Amino acid sequence: MERKSFGNMQCPVARTLERVGEWWSILILRDALQGLTRFDQFQKSLDIAPNMLTRRLHTLVDAGMLERRQYNDRPPRFEYVLTDLGRDFRSIIIALNAWGNKHFAPEGPSVMLVDTKTGKQVDLALVDRNSGREINARDYAIVPGPQADSIMRERLESVARRREAANEALLQEQAADDGPKGKASKAKKAAGPKGTDAKSAKDKPPAKAGKLTKLTKRA
Amino acid sequence: MERKSFGNMQCPVARTLERVGEWWSILILRDALQGLTRFDQFQKSLDIAPNMLTRRLHTLVDAGMLERRQYNDRPPRFEYVLTDLGRDFRSIIIALNAWGNKHFAPEGPSVMLVDTKTGKQVDLALVDRNSGREINARDYAIVPGPQADSIMRERLESVARRREAANEALLQEQAADDGPKGKASKAKKAAGPKGTDAKSAKDKPPAKAGKLTKLTKRA
Repeated sequence: MERKSFGNMQCPVARTLERVGEWWSILILRDALQGLTRFDQFQKSLDIAPNMLTRRLHTLVDAGMLERRQYNDRPPRFEYVLTDLGRDFRSIIIALNAWGNKHFAPEGPSVMLVDTKTGKQVDLALVDRNSGREINARDYAIVPGPQADSIMRERLESVARRREAANEALLQEQAADDGPKGKASKAKKAAGPKGTDAKSAKDKPPAKAGKLTKLTKRA
Repeated sequence: MERKSFGNMQCPVARTLERVGEWWSILILRDALQGLTRFDQFQKSLDIAPNMLTRRLHTLVDAGMLERRQYNDRPPRFEYVLTDLGRDFRSIIIALNAWGNKHFAPEGPSVMLVDTKTGKQVDLALVDRNSGREINARDYAIVPGPQADSIMRERLESVARRREAANEALLQEQAADDGPKGKASKAKKAAGPKGTDAKSAKDKPPAKAGKLTKLTKRA
C-alpha cells in the first residue's frame, strides 16, 4: 500500500529495492544463503503467513534471484534454489549483518560472521579492488555515469556543489582558527591527509581506515 | 499492512530492517548521505507524498539515524542531519549501489562510485580487516555468537550441517569423477585453493577473489 514503483528511477539503489521488493524478500535471501530451499523451511524460519511466503518466493523467482525446481514427482514438490544473481546478494546481507551487530546488539552478537581458520569475528571493510584501499567519503565520490540522464546529472552536480561548499566552509573555519597564518595553513591542510578532521567535516573518513592500510601492506 | 515486527528476532539483519523500517527510509538515507537535509529537498528528490515523508523522517529520527535541527526561527524550519549511526549506513548503500549497477544497469551505469584521484569506478570487495582477505563463502561462515539463544543455535547448527553435507557431496562427486585415484585427489582438493570449483559447490568464492589478493599484496 505504501509503495510506489522505483523502477523508472536511474539510481542503482532504487533499482535494487524495486527488484528485491520488500523486507521479507531480504530475509528469504538471507535464509537461502544459509542453505534453506524448501517452503516449510522458510516458513518455520520466518514465521510468515503461507500466502505471503508464496508471493515473496514468486517475486524472487520472477526477479531472477531464485530458481523454482521440482524435487519430487508424486506428490509434486518444489524447492527454491539461489541463482548466481541471488548468491551475489550476499554482499548486502554481510553489510547489513555487520551494521546490525555493531549498532543493534548491545548485549553482544547472536550471529557472527567469522574467519573459519581463526574463529575470529570479521571486522568488515569495503575496499576498492582497483586501488586496494578502503572506501571512505574523502577519496571516493558518487558521480554521474555515462548513461545518466539530465535529471540525474543535475542531481549529482548539486551534490558535488554541496560537497565543495562544505569543504570550502571547513577550510575557511580552519583558516580563521589559525589566525594570521591562515592562508598558508589552509593550503597545507587541503593537501594533507588530516584535512578533514574538524567537527564539521561531512566527509570524515571511517575511524579505522588507517588500520586496513596497515593490514593491506602486511598481507 | 504486510509487515510484522522483526524486533524480537536475534538476527542482526532482521534488527536492521526493523530499525530502518522501509524502502523509503533507505532512499532517504541515500539522499542524506549525498548531503540533502531539508524536507523540500527530500520531497523533490523522491517525489514522495508529504505525509509519508514526514512519517519516514520521524521514524529515522526515532531510530537515531537522523537528528532534527531547527535552522530558522521565524517561521520555524527544521532540517534533518545524519547522526554517526546514520552516516555509518553508508556501507549498505555502497553495497546496494554496486549490486544494482552490476545487475540492473545493462545499458551502463548512471550513478558511479569513483576514486576521485583516478576517476575510475570502484570495484567493490568486502574484506576482513583482521586478515586483510576478501570475504568468501569458503573461508568465512555464520556461527552463533555468545548471546545466541537456543533457537538461534539450533538454526545455525542446522546450517552448518547442511554446509558439511554439501561439501561431503561435492567431495564424493569429485572422487567419483577422478576414478581410482579419487581418494588421494579428494584429500588434496579439500585442502587446496581450488576445492570449490565444481558446479554444485554452494560456497563458491567470488570470481575476482584472486584479483584482490594480488592487489592487496601490491599495495
